[in-house]
Amino acid sequence: MDRITISHGSGGKAMHSLIDSLFMKELGNSILRRKSDSAVVKVGSEEIAFTTDSYVVKPIIFPGGDIGSLAVHGTVNDLSVCGARPLYLSLGLVIEEGLDKKTLTRIIKSINAAAKIAGVLIVTGDTKVVEKGSCDKIFINTSGIGKVYYSGLSTDKIRPQDVVIVSGSLGEHAIAVLSKREGISFGTNVKSDSSSLNGMIAGALKVSQNIRLMRDPTRGGLGTTLNEIVSSGRFGIALEEKDIPVSEGVREACELLGFDSLYLACEGRAVFIAAPQDAGKVLKALRRDRLGEGSRVIGRITSDHKGKVYMRTTSGGLRLVDMLSGEQLPRIC
Amino acid sequence: MDRITISHGSGGKAMHSLIDSLFMKELGNSILRRKSDSAVVKVGSEEIAFTTDSYVVKPIIFPGGDIGSLAVHGTVNDLSVCGARPLYLSLGLVIEEGLDKKTLTRIIKSINAAAKIAGVLIVTGDTKVVEKGSCDKIFINTSGIGKVYYSGLSTDKIRPQDVVIVSGSLGEHAIAVLSKREGISFGTNVKSDSSSLNGMIAGALKVSQNIRLMRDPTRGGLGTTLNEIVSSGRFGIALEEKDIPVSEGVREACELLGFDSLYLACEGRAVFIAAPQDAGKVLKALRRDRLGEGSRVIGRITSDHKGKVYMRTTSGGLRLVDMLSGEQLPRIC
Repeated sequence: MDRITISHGSGGKAMHSLIDSLFMKELGNSILRRKSDSAVVKVGSEEIAFTTDSYVVKPIIFPGGDIGSLAVHGTVNDLSVCGARPLYLSLGLVIEEGLDKKTLTRIIKSINAAAKIAGVLIVTGDTKVVEKGSCDKIFINTSGIGKVYYSGLSTDKIRPQDVVIVSGSLGEHAIAVLSKREGISFGTNVKSDSSSLNGMIAGALKVSQNIRLMRDPTRGGLGTTLNEIVSSGRFGIALEEKDIPVSEGVREACELLGFDSLYLACEGRAVFIAAPQDAGKVLKALRRDRLGEGSRVIGRITSDHKGKVYMRTTSGGLRLVDMLSGEQLPRIC
Repeated sequence: MDRITISHGSGGKAMHSLIDSLFMKELGNSILRRKSDSAVVKVGSEEIAFTTDSYVVKPIIFPGGDIGSLAVHGTVNDLSVCGARPLYLSLGLVIEEGLDKKTLTRIIKSINAAAKIAGVLIVTGDTKVVEKGSCDKIFINTSGIGKVYYSGLSTDKIRPQDVVIVSGSLGEHAIAVLSKREGISFGTNVKSDSSSLNGMIAGALKVSQNIRLMRDPTRGGLGTTLNEIVSSGRFGIALEEKDIPVSEGVREACELLGFDSLYLACEGRAVFIAAPQDAGKVLKALRRDRLGEGSRVIGRITSDHKGKVYMRTTSGGLRLVDMLSGEQLPRIC
């Protein structure tokens, strides 16, 4: 394979292979190699989380959000799942010549509203304009920094019997974007779950000192995120299909289009690995937040089938949940 | 004007008007309003510089560099001119489907080499791939954080009689990119000046406590940068044309193509405003660095013609140097 394909941006196997064979090989250092949602770095005496994401979602406006709010939510969440309080965001715009100002204004207003809700400031920015046909309407990069207040989150802390919690139902973001893009509507209207989870996460971190790891299941979905978590090979994960929350609309869309909700991107959900004795209080704290009302324990860390994710299906079988291979849905974020 | 045009990305008047009428209006806060190359923010007890830039240069490989090295240099310099030691960079790639891996590998290697020279680490990244025709080969966002070690840089510190110093000749980056893009060659081959100035700048800051402000004259060139500096209206700037360093190749290209070197982007030059009594030692420190060998005092801060930049031309006339209006050269960085 000597050319970059859409699947290299999928979040799945091809992307991980590109990351390892090129980016890690050339640029690798002890911080980058951790491959967490944010880098945790020392600046003087402070521990700081630093993250970046480029947003190329198509269409730029979708049910439940737009590229502007998404760009704030995604970066706020990448900081939050690393135990940081998000503080400052940068905003890098690449705009296609001819974009109408009304659309740009709507996006900027949406960024402002999302930043206000999350309590972050946009403190630095950059605007580039390229000729018509050289980009698709607008691409947005948001990078962010936050102050780490809950330290020690690490896959190294994970132990057999730890619980796997997800904060809400899967795949609403992906299906909302897809339905708008393809002009498909489903019986139940699906709206993106895109939202800033810093408040919800802070609530959970307040009640438990035994949260081992958090991740947000964006590109590649829950299935890929859990495979990344088990990749050290020290433990496995056993999921219970019956406990995994999937809304009626997403279920219907998956049946119609042949998607698997386990691989659909969320932009307002977090996965928690927590000590079993704290499961109850973490769930309670999460459910107190509107964004975490649908929180569920969906599985456990196991000492067997190390490095793999298995799921007990509703029909009683055992299914291997592999990492996403190929591209299920391009330009979903 | 209800659509975004190329000139909105020029670094000149149209861009400033878009920034003020939309970005500042909607997103403005005391940090963003400073409009410096980096935001200087507090995280806990540390003062941190934070900046972002997206690179859309065309062609992606040009004499003296490529989009990868440029993306490192530009962000390192934005941190450096704010008195910060650049520490960590993020890397956000938007890649067009079909880009050959050899080119991508070359760019990543170039990022690595530039980061090593500047002494910064790439600590976090993101890769998106879009369909053929939805971007032009590759766009790169680098954001960066650094630790502020020289504080108090501000236009507020600037006084009449302060000197204006530039660290080298103007416009080589713009002309190198343009010559490659248009397939024009000039009598003297022009190579981009793109480089990381953190070392050179640290040398100057070490010898003087009276550097008032630094800027890097990228898009919009020296003319636009100086107009930004005088925009408070508290003082003016008087330049001496005979002292402004322009190489033979750039001079020739400007004559041939009708460009004004004052508005051409540099990617390896810095402008210093310093107290007059420190001019000698700052120049000496700058010239000790290979990248600052061509440093010159090119003008002075004046108490008259406030808010304006004037230049005494070689023929003895006085010329108003306005901010760039329109787009002189699109996609130069």
